[in-house]
Amino acid sequence: MVVKFIWMETIFLHEKIMAFTGRRLLWNHWTWHVVQKGTPASQKAKVIIRVCWIKDIVVAVTGENMETMKSIIQKYQHKGISLVEAGVTRHRSILNGLKALAGDQTDSRLSKPQVVIIHDAVRPFFEEDDLLKVVRAAREHGAAGAVRPLVSTVVSPSTEGCLDHSLERARYRASEMPQAFLFDVIYEAYQRCSDYDLEFGTECLQLALKYCHTNAKLVEGSPDLWKVTYKRDLYAAESIIKERISQEICIVMDMKEEKEHVGHLLEAVLKNELHHVKMTSVVPCHDGSSIQHIILGQCYSFVCMNVMTTDFQNTQKLLGMLEESNLSILYPVVVVSVHFLDFELGPLSQKMESLMWIRKFAIEVKKRNILLCGLLVNYSQDEQKLQESLKQGAVIIAALIKERNSALLGQLLVA
Amino acid sequence: MVVKFIWMETIFLHEKIMAFTGRRLLWNHWTWHVVQKGTPASQKAKVIIRVCWIKDIVVAVTGENMETMKSIIQKYQHKGISLVEAGVTRHRSILNGLKALAGDQTDSRLSKPQVVIIHDAVRPFFEEDDLLKVVRAAREHGAAGAVRPLVSTVVSPSTEGCLDHSLERARYRASEMPQAFLFDVIYEAYQRCSDYDLEFGTECLQLALKYCHTNAKLVEGSPDLWKVTYKRDLYAAESIIKERISQEICIVMDMKEEKEHVGHLLEAVLKNELHHVKMTSVVPCHDGSSIQHIILGQCYSFVCMNVMTTDFQNTQKLLGMLEESNLSILYPVVVVSVHFLDFELGPLSQKMESLMWIRKFAIEVKKRNILLCGLLVNYSQDEQKLQESLKQGAVIIAALIKERNSALLGQLLVA
Repeated sequence: MVVKFIWMETIFLHEKIMAFTGRRLLWNHWTWHVVQKGTPASQKAKVIIRVCWIKDIVVAVTGENMETMKSIIQKYQHKGISLVEAGVTRHRSILNGLKALAGDQTDSRLSKPQVVIIHDAVRPFFEEDDLLKVVRAAREHGAAGAVRPLVSTVVSPSTEGCLDHSLERARYRASEMPQAFLFDVIYEAYQRCSDYDLEFGTECLQLALKYCHTNAKLVEGSPDLWKVTYKRDLYAAESIIKERISQEICIVMDMKEEKEHVGHLLEAVLKNELHHVKMTSVVPCHDGSSIQHIILGQCYSFVCMNVMTTDFQNTQKLLGMLEESNLSILYPVVVVSVHFLDFELGPLSQKMESLMWIRKFAIEVKKRNILLCGLLVNYSQDEQKLQESLKQGAVIIAALIKERNSALLGQLLVA
Repeated sequence: MVVKFIWMETIFLHEKIMAFTGRRLLWNHWTWHVVQKGTPASQKAKVIIRVCWIKDIVVAVTGENMETMKSIIQKYQHKGISLVEAGVTRHRSILNGLKALAGDQTDSRLSKPQVVIIHDAVRPFFEEDDLLKVVRAAREHGAAGAVRPLVSTVVSPSTEGCLDHSLERARYRASEMPQAFLFDVIYEAYQRCSDYDLEFGTECLQLALKYCHTNAKLVEGSPDLWKVTYKRDLYAAESIIKERISQEICIVMDMKEEKEHVGHLLEAVLKNELHHVKMTSVVPCHDGSSIQHIILGQCYSFVCMNVMTTDFQNTQKLLGMLEESNLSILYPVVVVSVHFLDFELGPLSQKMESLMWIRKFAIEVKKRNILLCGLLVNYSQDEQKLQESLKQGAVIIAALIKERNSALLGQLLVA
């Protein structure tokens, strides 16, 4: 039942939240990364394939969810994934994965690795560094696993449900994942272990110790290794993903020469509002290569400045380039089309009318996972009013980028 | 350093998130609820003062944060709180709290209780039932504490940082809070314990066992008892609070007789979109008592239906009543003013013009922690278009209520 629950949650992670996510959230139920000799990934390679020194990924999936998993792999264009059928317990799933990697099956395209990493799909937020640390330690010690300090004191209950004794918290650690092993060590441990182990065991390091006398190295892990277990963890996961993809904003600044300053003023206020966010400003060049460069760098938030209300060619051009790229396959892309206008020059409503095209465009680009909103900023001659408008505009942009809420697509907001 | 960290986070909880929260998030650093004989709270009393059978609350606060704490108490109008200076460790803080309750200080208004509950401020999401369970068990056994299953396997490292042995997960429990004690038991334990205990101990149950031979009853706690420790926990806390205060929506439905159906149509679509949310529909009566009743029931989300674009007396009346109540002291209240209009009868912009008053009102009521937004729904004669508009309107309302984002106040959204 527990295994089933974790699996269901993982599917939920994918369908509900993981539309936001990249390759490393693919892993389902229990996952294996096959590590072979090789140099660590260069920064560039990391962007394209997250961990290039991992040769194959084996995912254990329950039979009933096999088709869903295949469609996820296809949808997100993942490469190098092999699927094996999960067992009814954690250790049986791992054993099935190890068998697939042992290279003794004639129909397998997989070959036996030197080192294998074992990971839980319910811990999606690890960094490459977490993998590197356990792999290095496993090469030296035969086995290694990430540990974290205990958050709560551990107590032992008596048979009557009363306190028997409590453990001294500083002397113990919580065993987390990932763990890494010399393949021969862990494969042998799983072949030797008992049915009782396979049925009721939870700790791979313990099997390596018991059956191969390998004392695993315990490596201090990062807080990111936490297990997505309860509903609150899904909330946290969603917020973390949204935060991570909102770390860079590209400001497209094709201003007319004489009015150049107002876009820059808004940019300055925005920088103040979002001081922890990287702000990249580009002037679109003839062939669009400057924006292409940003898109390749995986920026998911765009603010397109337009001085004239009716001038939306820049926003259109940006949307075209985003639609052509594969950027929005993994995460939704936010585009805020900003227009400046003095509200005192005639009724505001007339100016809004000319921006109604945003509603139409927004529905169109939504199909490609792009969220388009409009923002009309009061370009007042009164310095104080202008500052207030810019401040409010920056707050609205920050909210649109942070929340990434599709309910607001096509809306024209007013600052 | 650890104690300091927890304290800082608690302040952050208050200032960043806990503007949303009620009495039970007041507790800071470590908290004592003094329990005296009495019947459990009736449902009504629970609403007014969350846990009425707790007579006094003692909060341990570090000296440097004493003034901040006092201002929080004043701001949220909390009653029955006594402050004591925190110690440099957990156990020293608790000891200071117990001394204040012992009744042997001449200047104290506090008297010695039969039972004391000890709780951590970093576990803000407990329910009254969690308190009741530990109090009942403490009366019988002298001491009791909430426990939870272990999320990760616990391992013991060797001096070389390798795995020495792992604990069988099912045989151990994580000790959480709250804990409850017969006052005489825990006070005696703290008076007898050594300086080493006060400096390095973490577990109150252990002190009761060691110094008073009291085997505490371990009570299975709810998952809500988790410790707000990392940044991800703050994200989770924010989402949980937002979810809790969005569990009921009041629909104010003062429709003209002949056009009654469109408001009800939107209500039906909204119910479909938010099927887990309680939807209460009221027709405002002459003296406003029907809405007063909802406000007293602590509903924080209002949708005000208006058929005529220019008709906003109802919204104004509702805002007036909300401003007079104390409802928004603890949580922000969302009000969505909905207006129906056939977009094909002349340019949309003209109709929007007449709704610009919402911007002005929104700024005004923001001062009282009320977030006002406008929503213009296309009341089309074309059945399909009408359904699309109603659907989009419901999605927008759901997002505004769920996100409760002040960046959007005063905006006029279009469905």
